[in-house]
Amino acid sequence: MSACAFCSIAAGDGEAHRVYEDDTVVAFLDVRPVTQGHTLVIPKQHAADLTELSADLGSNMFQVGHTLSRALRISDLRADGVNLVVNDGKSAFQTVAHTHLHVVPRQNGDKLRFVKGLLVRRSSDPEGTAAIIREALERAPES
Amino acid sequence: MSACAFCSIAAGDGEAHRVYEDDTVVAFLDVRPVTQGHTLVIPKQHAADLTELSADLGSNMFQVGHTLSRALRISDLRADGVNLVVNDGKSAFQTVAHTHLHVVPRQNGDKLRFVKGLLVRRSSDPEGTAAIIREALERAPES
Repeated sequence: MSACAFCSIAAGDGEAHRVYEDDTVVAFLDVRPVTQGHTLVIPKQHAADLTELSADLGSNMFQVGHTLSRALRISDLRADGVNLVVNDGKSAFQTVAHTHLHVVPRQNGDKLRFVKGLLVRRSSDPEGTAAIIREALERAPES
Repeated sequence: MSACAFCSIAAGDGEAHRVYEDDTVVAFLDVRPVTQGHTLVIPKQHAADLTELSADLGSNMFQVGHTLSRALRISDLRADGVNLVVNDGKSAFQTVAHTHLHVVPRQNGDKLRFVKGLLVRRSSDPEGTAAIIREALERAPES
């Protein structure tokens, strides 16, 4: 077991609702989602922040975020938009010292729900949510 | 002149304080910065949002954001961290319909200044700020 929670998930030890995985990155649901379907994409190799991340791994991480932004729109979560966010460094609100890209699905008119989500960050039905995203990723258009 | 303000900047017609440019993307200061050095990275080719952006161009855009996140830390702006953000879609707070990556330098203890910046978004000395970032990009470490 690693001391880093995200390294544990990357290694397959830590529990997580995974939606995507390849050789270099893994994507899973945030345990404290701002909106339903809030996903994190991380490099499997530990990097505390973007300064420790190689350009290639960064590219892979963002690429998966880009693909997720398409998938979430065609998913049963019916996102109309997505916030892609890296909070890089403690000063920028990074809370886990393993770099990660937030992918937050949004819906028209969800502004109040979004603000409530930022404050409450409560998960419901992660199992079903992850299944919805995995299914959409299989249908996501090539870019 | 294009009807799209960011296409005008990409074409070299629109005024902007540029910090980086290559064949496919251009980076320039946000005219309404949240913090000093707040930069936007855009693909030169028009894409309303990430669903219209090719994987390759998306990769280039994020790559430049990653490089900027390193450069801002070693720059005279002395960033301790960076927020990288794509607001993709109106529901996600996208206001200009040409996809763009926000790169927002942060400093330890700037939380109140950051919130004020979100509300006020006032620019000061963009000329000097752009020069500082360009200079840091030349010194930015390879990744």
